[in-house]
Amino acid sequence: MISIILVPLGFYYVNWSKSGEGAGLYSRDWKPDEVFAYWNPDDFYQPVKSVVGVFKGEECINCHKGVTPGIVKDWQASRHSKADKKVFCSDCHGDNHENLHMPTPKVCASCHTVQHQQFVDEKRYGFPSHALAMERALDAKHFVDKPKAEVTACLQCHSVATKCDSCHSRHKFSAAEARRPEACITCHSGPPHPDDETYFNSAHGQLYLKEGDQWDWSKPLKKGNYPAPTCAYCHMDEGKHQVADKSIWKFGLKQINPLSSGNEIKRNKWIKLCSDCHDKNWSAQQLKAMDAERKKTWNKLYQAEAILKDLRSNNNLFPSTELRPPYPGDTKHSLIQRERIGFFEGQASAFYNVSPIERDYFNMWYFGNLGAYKGSAHGDNSFVKKWHASMDENLKDIKIKAEQLQRSEKIKTNTKIIKDIWHKGEYTEFNQENN
Amino acid sequence: MISIILVPLGFYYVNWSKSGEGAGLYSRDWKPDEVFAYWNPDDFYQPVKSVVGVFKGEECINCHKGVTPGIVKDWQASRHSKADKKVFCSDCHGDNHENLHMPTPKVCASCHTVQHQQFVDEKRYGFPSHALAMERALDAKHFVDKPKAEVTACLQCHSVATKCDSCHSRHKFSAAEARRPEACITCHSGPPHPDDETYFNSAHGQLYLKEGDQWDWSKPLKKGNYPAPTCAYCHMDEGKHQVADKSIWKFGLKQINPLSSGNEIKRNKWIKLCSDCHDKNWSAQQLKAMDAERKKTWNKLYQAEAILKDLRSNNNLFPSTELRPPYPGDTKHSLIQRERIGFFEGQASAFYNVSPIERDYFNMWYFGNLGAYKGSAHGDNSFVKKWHASMDENLKDIKIKAEQLQRSEKIKTNTKIIKDIWHKGEYTEFNQENN
Amino acid sequence: MISIILVPLGFYYVNWSKSGEGAGLYSRDWKPDEVFAYWNPDDFYQPVKSVVGVFKGEECINCHKGVTPGIVKDWQASRHSKADKKVFCSDCHGDNHENLHMPTPKVCASCHTVQHQQFVDEKRYGFPSHALAMERALDAKHFVDKPKAEVTACLQCHSVATKCDSCHSRHKFSAAEARRPEACITCHSGPPHPDDETYFNSAHGQLYLKEGDQWDWSKPLKKGNYPAPTCAYCHMDEGKHQVADKSIWKFGLKQINPLSSGNEIKRNKWIKLCSDCHDKNWSAQQLKAMDAERKKTWNKLYQAEAILKDLRSNNNLFPSTELRPPYPGDTKHSLIQRERIGFFEGQASAFYNVSPIERDYFNMWYFGNLGAYKGSAHGDNSFVKKWHASMDENLKDIKIKAEQLQRSEKIKTNTKIIKDIWHKGEYTEFNQENN
Repeated sequence: MISIILVPLGFYYVNWSKSGEGAGLYSRDWKPDEVFAYWNPDDFYQPVKSVVGVFKGEECINCHKGVTPGIVKDWQASRHSKADKKVFCSDCHGDNHENLHMPTPKVCASCHTVQHQQFVDEKRYGFPSHALAMERALDAKHFVDKPKAEVTACLQCHSVATKCDSCHSRHKFSAAEARRPEACITCHSGPPHPDDETYFNSAHGQLYLKEGDQWDWSKPLKKGNYPAPTCAYCHMDEGKHQVADKSIWKFGLKQINPLSSGNEIKRNKWIKLCSDCHDKNWSAQQLKAMDAERKKTWNKLYQAEAILKDLRSNNNLFPSTELRPPYPGDTKHSLIQRERIGFFEGQASAFYNVSPIERDYFNMWYFGNLGAYKGSAHGDNSFVKKWHASMDENLKDIKIKAEQLQRSEKIKTNTKIIKDIWHKGEYTEFNQENN
Repeated sequence: MISIILVPLGFYYVNWSKSGEGAGLYSRDWKPDEVFAYWNPDDFYQPVKSVVGVFKGEECINCHKGVTPGIVKDWQASRHSKADKKVFCSDCHGDNHENLHMPTPKVCASCHTVQHQQFVDEKRYGFPSHALAMERALDAKHFVDKPKAEVTACLQCHSVATKCDSCHSRHKFSAAEARRPEACITCHSGPPHPDDETYFNSAHGQLYLKEGDQWDWSKPLKKGNYPAPTCAYCHMDEGKHQVADKSIWKFGLKQINPLSSGNEIKRNKWIKLCSDCHDKNWSAQQLKAMDAERKKTWNKLYQAEAILKDLRSNNNLFPSTELRPPYPGDTKHSLIQRERIGFFEGQASAFYNVSPIERDYFNMWYFGNLGAYKGSAHGDNSFVKKWHASMDENLKDIKIKAEQLQRSEKIKTNTKIIKDIWHKGEYTEFNQENN
Repeated sequence: MISIILVPLGFYYVNWSKSGEGAGLYSRDWKPDEVFAYWNPDDFYQPVKSVVGVFKGEECINCHKGVTPGIVKDWQASRHSKADKKVFCSDCHGDNHENLHMPTPKVCASCHTVQHQQFVDEKRYGFPSHALAMERALDAKHFVDKPKAEVTACLQCHSVATKCDSCHSRHKFSAAEARRPEACITCHSGPPHPDDETYFNSAHGQLYLKEGDQWDWSKPLKKGNYPAPTCAYCHMDEGKHQVADKSIWKFGLKQINPLSSGNEIKRNKWIKLCSDCHDKNWSAQQLKAMDAERKKTWNKLYQAEAILKDLRSNNNLFPSTELRPPYPGDTKHSLIQRERIGFFEGQASAFYNVSPIERDYFNMWYFGNLGAYKGSAHGDNSFVKKWHASMDENLKDIKIKAEQLQRSEKIKTNTKIIKDIWHKGEYTEFNQENN
């Protein structure tokens, strides 16, 4: 009897058909802005009908020399124009001008099979990974909830999954160019991935900035070919396109066990790679130092989480979850209204619609944790120092706000709890044991 | 009878004579630090009397080869030293060493008439514009109010109106050099104009960083000459010196109607320019995406303004305007004491002397709005994301502080108002309509 | 009788023997992480025993060509490999592979005597200086108190005192490379020393970014050799290795008298240096403008300090010093428990474990003051503006929090004090006098 109600309900919520104007899990709940067509062409691109006719490659070039000379020059400088069998515009975009398409990785795969296969292989590492980036964006509840004018910004980077020119800039598609760190930093800068900032502040980045223009970028990313490593040298060693392959700490997003058997294998790959230039022992101890930094960070985050869970249990958050407006998607599907404490259902959703003390936790996790992680991973000590100090400040603020929230309820009855908050943390026995 | 009193009062306040030691509208209320002489030479520069004599160009060079060899080498590398009729030190600074002057744009105009005319033409676009930058700084009430030790920093950049070497670094004055983005970023970095950060994080900036050193900078800024655009390529296309000519969104400072007839003309200029490399349709949709981002930003700002105006009407601000000290200039001219709620009389004055909730609004406007704007204008999605999240946090803080301020007055009588604050904003019907 | 007790106690606390697993003044209170061995080799490095044998220089090279080709190529590009009497691996690391050492400055000094002597000479200027950097880190109480996982980040930069490859990157050790600003910015970026940010935003940095790759870096740092100055050109003029030699403002850490007799000598050295390119008068007035900015900054800091001292005297801080946990080191040596108001015993210790109003003061001092200082010292007006605005906001917050803290005690009896807080500061008679 109940199943007669539940099964259709299930179908209603899970959107099996994935119909609707949007894409992904919640495709029925949103519609794309026009510009989305360029970030996710498979789902949204519609050909422009302004020019009529079927054209051969040479004809494309002849006309576009005048219309868009920049991209023709890029193509002329590319291997595509120099191969025995030239790769023309029409080979990737089609030859019917009323029905052109934006090339997706599948189009590139028709020649670059190995690279595409490696790229797709990355999916088995789960998220974060480049190959899953678009799905991850579209299937996030806060992507649906936010105005589309804002989440356009998300798609620009997450389109790394749906087009190859995120790294190999069109229409030169130069491997040499993609080996340089700038190919990565258009996306990998700022929170939650200050790879740009931390690499360029490191000794590696400093060497690149000083001498990189003289290095021979046509060489493959192999031991002995480069005086200092770049993003790709370490994360795509020997040019492998499954970038997440060596990822141990999962972008800093979660606490993991760095010494699990799977991670032990990855760790040995890192030590081997660092040993292209450094002593094996040195390399191993750098990784241990990073583990220690990570452990310390998560200890801070867990302290903060414990305080917040306590407040939530005692209904001490202000504004309370009842006071805050529901998420639009939840209003629509009123049976599954989520409790509005962002970080308990995935930290990214704590970006929005939370109380100040929850935001302090989010700042710890998003800016502090991830900034410190990239600092210790890339050798930028200034970032480690800066973001640990910031986390300490967040934790302090959390304690102060927690005490104030609790006090308004409990001031007369429970002073012990208040003091207990203060006597945990930076300056306690815990740290003495760890010194 | 009343006019007998009012007319002299008017003269007193408006400072018709513009006398006094300072310059600009409030010239009688302040005096410059010595260093101002270099930023605003027309008003403040006094020749140094240390060397006596009248010298020919060759004589200047001969002596300064030993005294200041760096600038002589710069001149030797310049077109000024290579022209048939050489342009010597004395041609710009004068030949009487006791009476030398700092060259202003008018001096350069005696040869570079077209560029100077274009530069001056920019004034008709009003502020923000380079040609009006010095007036804008000197006539700002907060320039007079602030200690001169601080506003020295303002003049360094605003001197772009009063000397040409802000962009064409002396004494090489190379057009090739000024075409590169670094010529702009000494001023155009940080709030309220993170052009530096957003350009270099964009795909355009990434190409410049990787390959820019190989580009031929002697070429004019025209279609087909550069593989990727720079600041000047887009904002001074074909080398035109009226930089504000294509400005639609006015630096992000105000909400405008992007589809007014005047802006429609500018928009078509942009689409034409972007189409040097990109598809016309693509270009148009990028601009529409920027419009959508702008609309969303101003929606957030207006929500915040409405809350603040309400608090002000109900005298709920803390510290109240009565509690705060008067601005020094107002103390002097006591008849026109301004109300100290910065943002109602021009957002820039909210930089100082405001209550925390007003400061939250200022941060939304100054960091959030302007950061997000430059992110969406220059293609740095990371900036859009970061600053919209920051605006959301500011708006949340404004709501929380507003509720706390109101509560101290109204806690028993008016709970409806409090809830209304919360149920407007990010996660409301408004957004659902826009999804 | 008392001395019988006091003398042994003294020995106990002062740690004459400096025994223990750590190093420095508190060596008995902590033990190093393994990675410390590389930052402070004299105290902690232990040779790796993995390879057995005594090897000649050529033998090292032959084997390491395959093991670590990158560093062999660096050595091959270095003057060490091109001298008549080659400097081999074994000359610096030793020849017994079971007993290799990490070269410290003393090892380099056996050939580079002059540079090492200059480097060591810097110690007489006290801290901040490169030569004292390691001692300064290890002897800081908060270094001992903090978990070692975090202070690893401190040692990376402070190791500039204990190894030469902080600036001369191994194994090329190129002087030309160390003359470029990137050699400095791996450490000199971010608070408390945004030298990176402020130099690259200045007109000097802008010229370097545009043209630096074409300059002849083999030339010594002397008048006429470089079109624009770099870090080393100004701070190590003519290549002198006592970098702190010309330091007047002591990194911005303290208020000093810029016109003391000692500083007058330094000031003349600066004017002489700036006059390599600029007019003497211009140079002198730039320094005066910096003095004015510094004076204004310290006026703001003193206002904030006065408020905090008042709160402390009246026991109005929250959380109070009693509520906060003791520092671990203090718990251990219970006779010398420090009062937990960080900034009264050295501002750096206010990084941690302070109340929000003390943290505001710390932010003023650490971010505001030091950011504004480097902005005015390096010619980045954007930094001056940004950080003075930030200090103004901190000071405002301090006033608001002070009033709130006082109010909870005094609201009925003392409204005059409250108003007095507000009527001091940015917009008072003081500023009018200074305009």
